[in-house]
Amino acid sequence: MNLEIVTIGDELLLGFTIDTNAAHLARELAALGARIVRRSTCGDDAAAIADAVQAALDRTGAVITTGGLGPTADDQSKPAIAALFGQQMVLDESIVAALEQRWLTRFGQPLPPSNRQQAMVPTGATILGNRHGSAPGIWLEDARGRWVAMLPGVPREMRGMLADTLIPRLRDRIGTGGTVIRSRTLRTCSIAESALADRLGELAGGIDGLSLAYLPGNDGVDLRLTSWSLPAREAERALDAAAVRVREKVGRWIYGEGDDDLAALMLAECAAREATVAVAESCTGGGLGARFTAVPGSSRSFMGGVIAYHNDVKVRELGVPTEALDAQGAVSEPVARAMAAGVRQRFGTRIGIGITGIAGPDGGTPDKPVGTVWVATDIDGDVRAVRAVLPGDRNEIRFRAGQLALDRLRRTFARDADGDGWTVRAP
Amino acid sequence: MNLEIVTIGDELLLGFTIDTNAAHLARELAALGARIVRRSTCGDDAAAIADAVQAALDRTGAVITTGGLGPTADDQSKPAIAALFGQQMVLDESIVAALEQRWLTRFGQPLPPSNRQQAMVPTGATILGNRHGSAPGIWLEDARGRWVAMLPGVPREMRGMLADTLIPRLRDRIGTGGTVIRSRTLRTCSIAESALADRLGELAGGIDGLSLAYLPGNDGVDLRLTSWSLPAREAERALDAAAVRVREKVGRWIYGEGDDDLAALMLAECAAREATVAVAESCTGGGLGARFTAVPGSSRSFMGGVIAYHNDVKVRELGVPTEALDAQGAVSEPVARAMAAGVRQRFGTRIGIGITGIAGPDGGTPDKPVGTVWVATDIDGDVRAVRAVLPGDRNEIRFRAGQLALDRLRRTFARDADGDGWTVRAP
Repeated sequence: MNLEIVTIGDELLLGFTIDTNAAHLARELAALGARIVRRSTCGDDAAAIADAVQAALDRTGAVITTGGLGPTADDQSKPAIAALFGQQMVLDESIVAALEQRWLTRFGQPLPPSNRQQAMVPTGATILGNRHGSAPGIWLEDARGRWVAMLPGVPREMRGMLADTLIPRLRDRIGTGGTVIRSRTLRTCSIAESALADRLGELAGGIDGLSLAYLPGNDGVDLRLTSWSLPAREAERALDAAAVRVREKVGRWIYGEGDDDLAALMLAECAAREATVAVAESCTGGGLGARFTAVPGSSRSFMGGVIAYHNDVKVRELGVPTEALDAQGAVSEPVARAMAAGVRQRFGTRIGIGITGIAGPDGGTPDKPVGTVWVATDIDGDVRAVRAVLPGDRNEIRFRAGQLALDRLRRTFARDADGDGWTVRAP
Repeated sequence: MNLEIVTIGDELLLGFTIDTNAAHLARELAALGARIVRRSTCGDDAAAIADAVQAALDRTGAVITTGGLGPTADDQSKPAIAALFGQQMVLDESIVAALEQRWLTRFGQPLPPSNRQQAMVPTGATILGNRHGSAPGIWLEDARGRWVAMLPGVPREMRGMLADTLIPRLRDRIGTGGTVIRSRTLRTCSIAESALADRLGELAGGIDGLSLAYLPGNDGVDLRLTSWSLPAREAERALDAAAVRVREKVGRWIYGEGDDDLAALMLAECAAREATVAVAESCTGGGLGARFTAVPGSSRSFMGGVIAYHNDVKVRELGVPTEALDAQGAVSEPVARAMAAGVRQRFGTRIGIGITGIAGPDGGTPDKPVGTVWVATDIDGDVRAVRAVLPGDRNEIRFRAGQLALDRLRRTFARDADGDGWTVRAP
């Protein structure tokens, strides 16, 4: 099935908002076997919307739009596209009732007058339910089988409606026999793109007809294998086999697959070992704690910690010796070690993590350039520390410092300790 | 001047790469007075490129493309677009020489054979130099004055070529007397989009020819005024005047403009009052501390805090009374107040912030649904708390809780206290 996407919004055209919806749609639809052949972005005015959608209908006959379904005057998608199908707009009383109920339950207020507009729908339309927001989606189809699905522009709402209503609908239409585009992502950490390519050797450019893409980010370098032209079952088998070969070469640096989050994986490892965790953060300022607590159920292992941004806090709350601070500065091995041990003892956990560094843009010196961090882990009293100089701007350095701390835990938990880790057993 | 953008690349259509080039181009060109009226994305094959670019030339006659200028077989932009202008491809020896020099100097290698392709250019083309990469850009123009500018897809190279060669060229064509697209963004917090529209009344849909867009996000709802067809000086005046009128209606909820970050603004307010801050975070897990410390120079006012994720930590580190936890639960007014006061006293700061809530997805009850948060501020011993039910998923609720805490500080610092705030003076 060939599809086109039309993303609607002045803020997209003007460059104020990055278009993440189109990318998400494309990935989800490719997995179904639907191929995006064109993508357009137009502004909020009804004429531009009608022009872009009409052209897409004429070219391809299957169109998904995002945006323009809100309660204000610059939300023109429904009337503009309804006109292309020769339909009029009518007020759907069941949607009004649902909106009134939503506003009463969530906000304790009656439905604002401007939100009634969201209950206007084209005659002959199928409503796509929205569990994550006010605006219902719309499916319109003509006698020739050409269709437009209108989704909200707010990413969370769009993604929810896509999964709940549109994907199942398209899956029925597509069936299961054709070729698909499928990918498998292996997530690495603490190794550079070029070093990965070197270690992959002859696999570096692709494997058995599957392409291999290198996607560097703050989490580390993701390796993406993609099958372009096999049926679903064969694609999965090919990806499985290729992933095995990649792991044989660089498995030591692979911490997960797909969307795996290293913090979530480490919490699972802690839970399996009945190991509680506390953090002592300086330059990361609470960011590692925020990463842990982003994971539902993190309270099973994550107790909390101390944001020791000022040196007085390091001394008073964590027992960091003033001599160490004076002699070697806050960004040093003894201070990192004392932070990890201090928070572990104070919070009574099995694991303590200490992070101290220079996030920049100021504060660097020739000895300790911007990006210098010390990360220490104290596990059942065994304290180890490592120094790194991390690339990027202030926020990239802070994020990467947290990721380094998580990777230190990962190496500790890995069974093939490789001399660098050690084994942590459940009590 | 009206323009269209065509971004070329399978990886964009498939959603593996987010299209940041289009947004960057749009912002830079709008400042010149060039208006992007349509944006398209097509795949790497020559037929798709020709189709998309021809349509754009016919509609608008001024097209910028990105991508497809590399050294591999899937780089088809130049031949595909040359054919539209009736031109052929020839090898430009001066570009070959420049590429050979580049490879020798940067990589110490001779020019790989596949890279010679980058020296093929359409007859009659103007070359746009690339200081950041191998691929030269191309400008093609026909006798009617319709033109296409082809830029590289790698963002850093595209941005460099845009600034070095294309913007000056377009500035000459547009001149300086023409009209510009200019925007002014007013950032609001703690008020819903529809409530803003209701309060704006007759201004809700636009003011004096300027459009008004509502951009909801986790920071709050941004209001963007845009001038589309005035010369630069008049546009600025019109935006100034419209902003005044908007502030008259909803100024109470406006915390900043443009890219203003509420955490940075609050740190500046604290610094001006010589007021230090400490945070006690439960459901936000360190996220508010991370927001403060994302701001360079935050150490002037931000001392640190306690991540009191587990109730034991609230009791032991912050002195929260166990009776309050047992009687009303962790997400309650007395616990939030005790957290704020506890961290303020312990850290010796003038300001303490306490945040406790139910971030979900689990943990909600009819009395305390998911999204329930209590935020308390203790300023010089004066403790105030507020309860809210915040929308969104786990991470949106956590971010919004931090933003609510910052907004509570903002209201405190606001001179027109409106009965809800109070005045904090420098000592």
